[in-house]
Amino acid sequence: MFKKVSLMFGAVAVVSSTVFASDTALLEKARELFKPLPAEIPAPKTNPTTPEKVELGKKLYYDPRLSLSGVISCNTCHNLATFGVDNVETALGHRFLTGGRNSPTVLNAGFHIAQFWDGRAKTLEDQAKGPILAHVEMAMPNPDFVVLKLKTIPGYVEEFKKVFKNDPDPLTYDNVAKAIAAFERTLVTPSRFDQFLKGDTNALTEKEKEGLKLFIDKGCASCHNGVAVGGGMFAKFGVVKPYPTADLGRFKVTKKEEDKFVFKVPSLRNITKTYPYFHDGAVWDIREAVRIMGETQLGIKLTQEEIDKIVAFLDSLTGEIPESARTVPVLPPSSKDTPKPKAD
Amino acid sequence: MFKKVSLMFGAVAVVSSTVFASDTALLEKARELFKPLPAEIPAPKTNPTTPEKVELGKKLYYDPRLSLSGVISCNTCHNLATFGVDNVETALGHRFLTGGRNSPTVLNAGFHIAQFWDGRAKTLEDQAKGPILAHVEMAMPNPDFVVLKLKTIPGYVEEFKKVFKNDPDPLTYDNVAKAIAAFERTLVTPSRFDQFLKGDTNALTEKEKEGLKLFIDKGCASCHNGVAVGGGMFAKFGVVKPYPTADLGRFKVTKKEEDKFVFKVPSLRNITKTYPYFHDGAVWDIREAVRIMGETQLGIKLTQEEIDKIVAFLDSLTGEIPESARTVPVLPPSSKDTPKPKAD
Repeated sequence: MFKKVSLMFGAVAVVSSTVFASDTALLEKARELFKPLPAEIPAPKTNPTTPEKVELGKKLYYDPRLSLSGVISCNTCHNLATFGVDNVETALGHRFLTGGRNSPTVLNAGFHIAQFWDGRAKTLEDQAKGPILAHVEMAMPNPDFVVLKLKTIPGYVEEFKKVFKNDPDPLTYDNVAKAIAAFERTLVTPSRFDQFLKGDTNALTEKEKEGLKLFIDKGCASCHNGVAVGGGMFAKFGVVKPYPTADLGRFKVTKKEEDKFVFKVPSLRNITKTYPYFHDGAVWDIREAVRIMGETQLGIKLTQEEIDKIVAFLDSLTGEIPESARTVPVLPPSSKDTPKPKAD
Repeated sequence: MFKKVSLMFGAVAVVSSTVFASDTALLEKARELFKPLPAEIPAPKTNPTTPEKVELGKKLYYDPRLSLSGVISCNTCHNLATFGVDNVETALGHRFLTGGRNSPTVLNAGFHIAQFWDGRAKTLEDQAKGPILAHVEMAMPNPDFVVLKLKTIPGYVEEFKKVFKNDPDPLTYDNVAKAIAAFERTLVTPSRFDQFLKGDTNALTEKEKEGLKLFIDKGCASCHNGVAVGGGMFAKFGVVKPYPTADLGRFKVTKKEEDKFVFKVPSLRNITKTYPYFHDGAVWDIREAVRIMGETQLGIKLTQEEIDKIVAFLDSLTGEIPESARTVPVLPPSSKDTPKPKAD
């Protein structure tokens, strides 16, 4: 038996006062809001996933030669030993510079509506092209230089030829991004919550189920929903009460007044492991992050007990990182023509 | 039938004019100088290798929290995706500072007479304690801080307790080093040369065998010998002709005049993959490195053909990095008490 009231509150739909008769009712409600993870992230027609492409993408993902210094790889900031993040406030890149935003996890990222905190890249392919060239990240001067460098590595030349065998010029910057994106589409982390969604109501503890109820009742699930428990929409950070930040978020992309302080709603999968929180990485404690969310987004003051239960539920979203993705490839060696790394 | 002449030339014994009647004779000669790799590096009585200790050591090896910034791990400079090195001239550490020496490979390092280019650490355990504290590397302020930090990570507290169960205080800086060393003792890379040494004379090509002959005949094997094909002794860099360097090498450790420009003879296992070469990483081309060695150490001018063959032999020393070592562990999460990373 449900009593469901939806209110529009600012940009956010708040679902409240839901009462669950039983585990079955909770499961039924959860299934309206969330979906279990598939084995792999669906690929676009323009970049079908193949095992060879995934292997190539994995090599590129772990290869520090994609950076000017020769020591920073995708995995430096999106470390698969730490749930696809670096666990520092804002990413450290070339010469220890920082772009001022927290590294979002690469895990399950392909389920998102768009990439980056401000959604400025539509796809994983578009996203992969950014950090390689950002002067505060991997600092490569331009796409041509990336391609020129990779073309001096015989192992890569051969592998691109095999993977992109119908392309007249297989080793391009677009194909670098396609291979990395294909690898990233394997970064899916099923958790106990997926077992629950598939029908095993014992997969969650009582406390976790109470947390899930609260997560729905209090309105968290209005934004954090879908297969990635978030990642599906943009929202203003500070709907009810402003969050102290100078970062204008999506406004930088769209220049629309209404996009000031708007960010992509992050996925909450593996969230208890991907501290620190928010676009600025300013909050280290998940409990504090939940408290702030209640206050800024929902205009409610969650009790310590409620926060406890919600955090217990969030912890049930911690999943397994595929071992194949964590097996570091042996990278193909450079040749005498390979441009030398530059630290400055 | 052997004709063997040993001359003492500076600090280096030069074995020359060896003529081999057959593959069997070459094998016999090679067995006098080299040994095949065992499955694992023998452990000292004070730090027996156990599977649990290796797993813990692997976690520490891949954990960037052993650095002040939170982004540099042992694997940053001793990257197991690139044969245990960083493939840059001199290591980049905290704030992109450099200590001015090339990162030696961690692979097979436990076979060496001592650690670091100047041999200032006797054991793998001693070595592991250095970079964590070096301000140009991982930049932790002192051993107590490392221990304090790790003690705030519940997963580590538990794991140290299990691994060092007879220690009243299991989580100490000494035990951090012991665990890392235990992991490193698994980093053994058998190659085709080992198959040859075990009796399969077809494991090497004709060219590689000619290279091996030259390697012995010309005197390279006088220093680069034993199980690691090097790593067993110290030698002056510039026996016959000085090598241009301001680095006084082992003199910094011993303050003995005769140790000026003396370095540990590096192992040549995986050498074609661990460019750039020498303590200063100044030479990127293995052929050029071999030419310089002939000139500075042996006083000979190797022909292009001889260099070709020697390099072919060196390539047969490229081995397999154990997959278990390349499987990145999922690191135990920090707690709210864990000191925050510091980038400056």
